[in-house]
Amino acid sequence: VRLGGCPLLLVRGAADDPDLARRLARLPGVARVAALPGPHLLSARETFAGRTRVPIRPGLEVGGGEFVVMAGPCAVEGEEQIRTIAAAVAANGARVLRGGAFKPRTTPICFQGLGSPGLELLDRAGREQRLPIISEALAQRQLDEVAGRVDLLQVGMRNALNYTLLAEIGRHPLRRPVLIKCGIGATLREFLCAADYVLSGGNQNVILCLRGSAGFGCSSRAVLNMADIPALRRMTHLPIVGDPSHAAGRRELVPALSAAALAAGADGLLVEVHDRPDQALCDGPQALTPEQFGRMMFRLGPLAAALGRTLASPARPPVGLEAHPLADLGVEAPAAHA
Amino acid sequence: VRLGGCPLLLVRGAADDPDLARRLARLPGVARVAALPGPHLLSARETFAGRTRVPIRPGLEVGGGEFVVMAGPCAVEGEEQIRTIAAAVAANGARVLRGGAFKPRTTPICFQGLGSPGLELLDRAGREQRLPIISEALAQRQLDEVAGRVDLLQVGMRNALNYTLLAEIGRHPLRRPVLIKCGIGATLREFLCAADYVLSGGNQNVILCLRGSAGFGCSSRAVLNMADIPALRRMTHLPIVGDPSHAAGRRELVPALSAAALAAGADGLLVEVHDRPDQALCDGPQALTPEQFGRMMFRLGPLAAALGRTLASPARPPVGLEAHPLADLGVEAPAAHA
Amino acid sequence: VRLGGCPLLLVRGAADDPDLARRLARLPGVARVAALPGPHLLSARETFAGRTRVPIRPGLEVGGGEFVVMAGPCAVEGEEQIRTIAAAVAANGARVLRGGAFKPRTTPICFQGLGSPGLELLDRAGREQRLPIISEALAQRQLDEVAGRVDLLQVGMRNALNYTLLAEIGRHPLRRPVLIKCGIGATLREFLCAADYVLSGGNQNVILCLRGSAGFGCSSRAVLNMADIPALRRMTHLPIVGDPSHAAGRRELVPALSAAALAAGADGLLVEVHDRPDQALCDGPQALTPEQFGRMMFRLGPLAAALGRTLASPARPPVGLEAHPLADLGVEAPAAHA
Amino acid sequence: VRLGGCPLLLVRGAADDPDLARRLARLPGVARVAALPGPHLLSARETFAGRTRVPIRPGLEVGGGEFVVMAGPCAVEGEEQIRTIAAAVAANGARVLRGGAFKPRTTPICFQGLGSPGLELLDRAGREQRLPIISEALAQRQLDEVAGRVDLLQVGMRNALNYTLLAEIGRHPLRRPVLIKCGIGATLREFLCAADYVLSGGNQNVILCLRGSAGFGCSSRAVLNMADIPALRRMTHLPIVGDPSHAAGRRELVPALSAAALAAGADGLLVEVHDRPDQALCDGPQALTPEQFGRMMFRLGPLAAALGRTLASPARPPVGLEAHPLADLGVEAPAAHA
Repeated sequence: VRLGGCPLLLVRGAADDPDLARRLARLPGVARVAALPGPHLLSARETFAGRTRVPIRPGLEVGGGEFVVMAGPCAVEGEEQIRTIAAAVAANGARVLRGGAFKPRTTPICFQGLGSPGLELLDRAGREQRLPIISEALAQRQLDEVAGRVDLLQVGMRNALNYTLLAEIGRHPLRRPVLIKCGIGATLREFLCAADYVLSGGNQNVILCLRGSAGFGCSSRAVLNMADIPALRRMTHLPIVGDPSHAAGRRELVPALSAAALAAGADGLLVEVHDRPDQALCDGPQALTPEQFGRMMFRLGPLAAALGRTLASPARPPVGLEAHPLADLGVEAPAAHA
Repeated sequence: VRLGGCPLLLVRGAADDPDLARRLARLPGVARVAALPGPHLLSARETFAGRTRVPIRPGLEVGGGEFVVMAGPCAVEGEEQIRTIAAAVAANGARVLRGGAFKPRTTPICFQGLGSPGLELLDRAGREQRLPIISEALAQRQLDEVAGRVDLLQVGMRNALNYTLLAEIGRHPLRRPVLIKCGIGATLREFLCAADYVLSGGNQNVILCLRGSAGFGCSSRAVLNMADIPALRRMTHLPIVGDPSHAAGRRELVPALSAAALAAGADGLLVEVHDRPDQALCDGPQALTPEQFGRMMFRLGPLAAALGRTLASPARPPVGLEAHPLADLGVEAPAAHA
Repeated sequence: VRLGGCPLLLVRGAADDPDLARRLARLPGVARVAALPGPHLLSARETFAGRTRVPIRPGLEVGGGEFVVMAGPCAVEGEEQIRTIAAAVAANGARVLRGGAFKPRTTPICFQGLGSPGLELLDRAGREQRLPIISEALAQRQLDEVAGRVDLLQVGMRNALNYTLLAEIGRHPLRRPVLIKCGIGATLREFLCAADYVLSGGNQNVILCLRGSAGFGCSSRAVLNMADIPALRRMTHLPIVGDPSHAAGRRELVPALSAAALAAGADGLLVEVHDRPDQALCDGPQALTPEQFGRMMFRLGPLAAALGRTLASPARPPVGLEAHPLADLGVEAPAAHA
Repeated sequence: VRLGGCPLLLVRGAADDPDLARRLARLPGVARVAALPGPHLLSARETFAGRTRVPIRPGLEVGGGEFVVMAGPCAVEGEEQIRTIAAAVAANGARVLRGGAFKPRTTPICFQGLGSPGLELLDRAGREQRLPIISEALAQRQLDEVAGRVDLLQVGMRNALNYTLLAEIGRHPLRRPVLIKCGIGATLREFLCAADYVLSGGNQNVILCLRGSAGFGCSSRAVLNMADIPALRRMTHLPIVGDPSHAAGRRELVPALSAAALAAGADGLLVEVHDRPDQALCDGPQALTPEQFGRMMFRLGPLAAALGRTLASPARPPVGLEAHPLADLGVEAPAAHA
């Protein structure tokens, strides 16, 4: 197995046999002999010194000191829609514009995305705001087109265990950074093994995205377990972002989940924003309005600073700011002291 | 039904019938007619103007501007142990000392707690550090004794749906503030209905504690869904604290979960701390060391400030502080910029 | 530790040390030295030669060759109701009459059961039909009364981890057989440890009841995992019954779940039946009508026979029988061959 | 939308407006106007009179009176292996031979199946035993090859929400019957919507396969909720089979789950059998030995008969048969009466 040009010799049991491990370590070209704690390999913390930083464009990387927020609509619906939203998220600190062109929808009679024209509209709106763009490819036959347009390639939750697609993306010659969402019923180990399919194709720029798992009796559509963030960081060298929108399923819970993911150590967010959520062609209930997004980003700034991270949040208080920071995060503020 | 002396008239369907609602509102003694969104009643947001603040002692309340950390060992094991831990948590900003005397243990042959002598040791250690104390009562026959000693009465996860005990606590003449943990398989509505059992006895000082639910394929023992915090705040006027120790089950995940709960809007924490976790008689793997607790509290301070809350964290950097705030929260720090 | 009069010497690690095990086995009074596979002890398969049969009355035991169906309403609501239902279930093969007198209800303003008068009505209806009765005790102070009336004492799901109550029941001098429901968020090991609390009090007549766990995205209120039945039988010597009513939450799914539990190896069922489900004071939607119960029991008979078990199902086809056996189990019959 | 040549007019809200519904029903070509209970459409019970029977070959269909067992190894590993297993399952009543050639494996360094040669070996072994075969296609580029060889095309759990692949399969000109597994974190509605993707391509021969969902604290790898079988039958006209092997994850639980699925109303099973499970290249722990499979099938025969179904189980008792039917289903037999 090769990891970005470094030959990796896998010898089962080497770690259990100190003598064998020592002899292996002395072989020419062997830098290190490590015990792997699970089935995942190339994504394992042990196979890489340091943490991976995924470069998006000069001055922007995921996995470094900056907390990177990617925002935009679930689906590109038209030129005016995507331009309006792009301008709004850019003005409030988003560093990447998201927008679906090829949409995997639950039923075949739902709106399936604008396809190629949607991708072009996203591209133009991103360039207008000088924002890199992220969009999803659903199948191999879209890979050339999507990878040719986007700065980040997204693999959605439904394809999280579609190993054929993951391997094809890993081998794709354009080597676009890839953001993989975790499958809703997948374990963390399965998630990392899925990332291994991309890594083993030679593409090392993989970002892991937690979007919530099957939950029980709770308030949100899925459960984004914040404990998975520090746990994953111990298991892998890859950067980790959260998707509070799909986890929440309800916009009023999104800002608090965003703040929690930041506090738990995530490297960024993927957030849905729509200028007219009630008319959105998909996932409207979980989209923030530009105004809510602005207030959230303004409040995340000091939080990021307290955690030693930078965040491109708006410097000036946005219109409509509440008196208490928690209120801008969708949390009813605590009672004032009597 | 009476809520703290205010008669509450319940008329099913009143909210659906504007005419009836208007007539009811004009009756003498009726302050408000509200539609209730679920089966819970006294705990419902709609039945109380404002948010409940639970007073613990002069200058200390849960549910106000202060983020209140309660810390201590899972079980009181001996005088030296509880005194050492009490001193350590007091020095690092804990405002309440926790410690189990009557322990509900998974098997009948496990250590079941020191019982009454444990309670006395906890009481003395608390007084020595000027900290109020919280401890659990498992059954009616312990109620007088436990309520007589503690400042806060705890109802554990295993008794979360033990309505007989909850009702008895609600009626107990000492009217101690009560912290109720959410059952591991309970829905938020069931949780609030359980709180109603205490409230309907006339005790309004109820604190809700989230300790994680049944989860799937994840890194932690249970899943403390942070979305439940803002969601619960919309459903109830009662204060909400998180128990990151039982949710995590592994100490290395506790500080990040604590930070996430603070960021998501919790009013405080219940955290396990042990001076010798490896020798703890119960739940050692999830207990922070005093040193880890100190570093966590130091880092939570600025986070609380960024969220508009106060936190009694240590002013001076504790010994062993890491360079990056996230590292003190158990999160591997992001890569430095190239 | 004593198990029904047999001293049980517990030596941690004895099983790992063949020499120690051999020496222990030679000690006077030591019958066997066994390795225990988990934290549960007295309920463990390894601590008992054979399988426990819980005697209810002469000619009736749970855990033997007979598949024992216990049926009746969720709650006793009045004399006519319980007498009508008792007659109906007796006529259709039920061997035990169930009925709640003390009810643990989700909210304090719900109907909480008739209490002592309900218990008396149940007792009389049972005697009229010559059926033993099962009912729940919620707290120690009801134990004398309930144990004095019933043939089987029930511990409900909400008290499944209420160790204080379980231990009290185990020590109760009347030594009534006990049916314990599994907590909705409890693991099988926690379930067996809960049973240990009863067993360690000296009461060996414990029946385990599976009523479903926290599930995800499914058709029923809870998930009664049928794999737990054969798995539990390998872990414990205690008999196991299923509660399809609480698992399903919808009556139309109850007969198929009942058949599945029988086929998976359960020793019996606890089924809710109500003559007027739409007017039931609790859990009406999950109660079978007497007519549905009769058709189900008629169809379970041949199924039990095919599995080598006896079942007291009605010999004659009940009124309203469908042409296809599956239809009587609430399952749409397969298409006829073309 | 067309369903097998019948034009289907979809008018949102038609069912809520009796007048509109009546006018629609009078239009030429409109056979029926039905209210749909969920987002799924072509798979909905309401859109088809009767239940779908999927023809496999003359005399064999899934969804009719016969309970159809499909069995074989997880993966084809070599000629001798597949021939041996094929002979064994054929002799014991299997009606379809299963075997993976293209395997979706959790890590990229695991055995990924023999590919085309594996498919050819499966084909030959099937023909030798006169058994139709089922195998999985992972991607569009394998579709022509796999569909050209197999009698049934399988869509695995990992591609359960891969709508691109599902739509391609629906449109494939060979119109092979398709078996779709339910995604581990998918709801029943999502499952039926996934089936709609195949149906909307014009392929009506779809079999639904339940293989278990994300579960909690249980004995098996996943939870096959038996209540989903009767519930799905009310939601859809498509046949439903169970996959007890993947649900259990442990061979000792497979026969009891198989019996439970039969009793709950499934139309068949997909079972893994391996002649040397300990040396299997994948999923060995969940594979039955041929001997276990034979004993299970022998015991399922009378069970099927009791439920009004036929099952091609072996007429003569297989070698090694236990005294009690439950023992052959992997369930410890009940205690004999004293």
